[in-house]
Amino acid sequence: MALIDHIKRCNRWNPSDFLPLMEGDKLLGVMRPETALYLSDFPDLFVHYNGQVGLADRWKTPEDRTAAFRPIAERLALEGLIDKLRDEDYRVVTKWGEEPLMVMDRAAISLLGIKAFGIHVNGMLLLERDRDLQLWIGKRAADKHVEPGKYDNVVAGGQPAGLTLQENLLKECAEEAGFGPRIVKRAQPVSLITYCMEDGRGLKRDTLFIYDMLVPEGTEPKAVDGEMEHFVLMRRGMILNMLRGEDFPFKFNVALVLIDFLIRHGFLTPENEPDYPALVTGLHTALD
Amino acid sequence: MALIDHIKRCNRWNPSDFLPLMEGDKLLGVMRPETALYLSDFPDLFVHYNGQVGLADRWKTPEDRTAAFRPIAERLALEGLIDKLRDEDYRVVTKWGEEPLMVMDRAAISLLGIKAFGIHVNGMLLLERDRDLQLWIGKRAADKHVEPGKYDNVVAGGQPAGLTLQENLLKECAEEAGFGPRIVKRAQPVSLITYCMEDGRGLKRDTLFIYDMLVPEGTEPKAVDGEMEHFVLMRRGMILNMLRGEDFPFKFNVALVLIDFLIRHGFLTPENEPDYPALVTGLHTALD
Repeated sequence: MALIDHIKRCNRWNPSDFLPLMEGDKLLGVMRPETALYLSDFPDLFVHYNGQVGLADRWKTPEDRTAAFRPIAERLALEGLIDKLRDEDYRVVTKWGEEPLMVMDRAAISLLGIKAFGIHVNGMLLLERDRDLQLWIGKRAADKHVEPGKYDNVVAGGQPAGLTLQENLLKECAEEAGFGPRIVKRAQPVSLITYCMEDGRGLKRDTLFIYDMLVPEGTEPKAVDGEMEHFVLMRRGMILNMLRGEDFPFKFNVALVLIDFLIRHGFLTPENEPDYPALVTGLHTALD
Repeated sequence: MALIDHIKRCNRWNPSDFLPLMEGDKLLGVMRPETALYLSDFPDLFVHYNGQVGLADRWKTPEDRTAAFRPIAERLALEGLIDKLRDEDYRVVTKWGEEPLMVMDRAAISLLGIKAFGIHVNGMLLLERDRDLQLWIGKRAADKHVEPGKYDNVVAGGQPAGLTLQENLLKECAEEAGFGPRIVKRAQPVSLITYCMEDGRGLKRDTLFIYDMLVPEGTEPKAVDGEMEHFVLMRRGMILNMLRGEDFPFKFNVALVLIDFLIRHGFLTPENEPDYPALVTGLHTALD
């Protein structure tokens, strides 16, 4: 398949299927009309006007809004409109870095089309003898809810409300791959990837912060928390062949991270990849 | 100033000021209504329908269309609608890599809002002793038509019709900085930047292919063809300070190349730059 198909796959959605969730004049999220209808049962928190949804001004603080949404989230999970709660909160913001309006269980984020943030780490091995860059790739456990058995970045995870990016990086590196702080210090933020994808219930409006991390020779990632079955080393040519093959061996968004990696490291070029400009612009679409 | 202002500056245009120039159902360019009116004098090549402009089907080959446009370009230059012809042709395409519909003097490209492509090279110096990455930066000659005296990438240039990217890279590196093939081989394609900018007469719809090139210690760029006055080495912190300062020491699009560089090399991060996501998406806007 063409590489651009991976990007199209992660950006399938029809704006006319969704209503905006506004915070003042800023877009906070989007939701299906049936979700808006459901939420009209909770006028304390959600108000409807002119085909839009907004947050009611009854609650004045992030803590109050967060508390007001908790029972709603529980009912949404109970009635099957979202998966069971994850007991992990995400910040509710219109853009990265601003003070959160509230926090919300991550299981409810895509139902309301609120921006979610995450980190993905390219674990690189550069052998002195052949100077060929390889990547440590994880195989997702067979019992994962999302994309079981698919290949994944060596470390990846959502960005919880209570942590800085750096704290999250340390936590995920330890939990998923057994990397300690001495190795994590080698991780450099190098890129950012966005996509916008229907997930059956709502819209995933995701932003991934991308890190490249040179893993020292002799250090191997270890499957610590059971999210990964094992790790393998892959050369760039092999990754490219797998991306161009007919099935989807990588988790949907990991394919994007790998295409970005192959571009940044000069393996995909404007001369060997006809869709080069469309790939670069497609990996970094503005979400507003 | 905020870094995002550099991106806004390069993306100032109002779509409602322009009419589309179509090739079948694909957008080939955009032009001001007064340009469209002017071109209606040349129905052999330009046809008008439904508030759009298209290429007439009288000419069947790229060579014929190219020949038909030459006298029009001369008249445009004579009457001051474009700058004097550059005697350098650009490919006329709806997207990178496709067979050109024709070629056209680069002086006329932005009048018709046709996509232009170019190369920009980040010339990097990595001193063994301090591991601090520095960039070779050129100072544009005082007699340059565009942005005289501003700082520029060590090598940059438009992409002429007759050359491959690699050939153009070799040519520009030799002409602008005196770099021979042995050094140019170190240039790696690593990124791509797009912007869309009014230029008074039309719209610059530009795509820059970005190369990182490690310049060996002891090798210095030399101002060969007079486009640059001289070259200086700048540390990343100094570049960042200059970008954040109140004036514009860099050529408008070079500011974007440098922001992209600082992001890819981990100097700007999601933790030290609040607009990080907006910068990354703003550097890579789809031009269609």
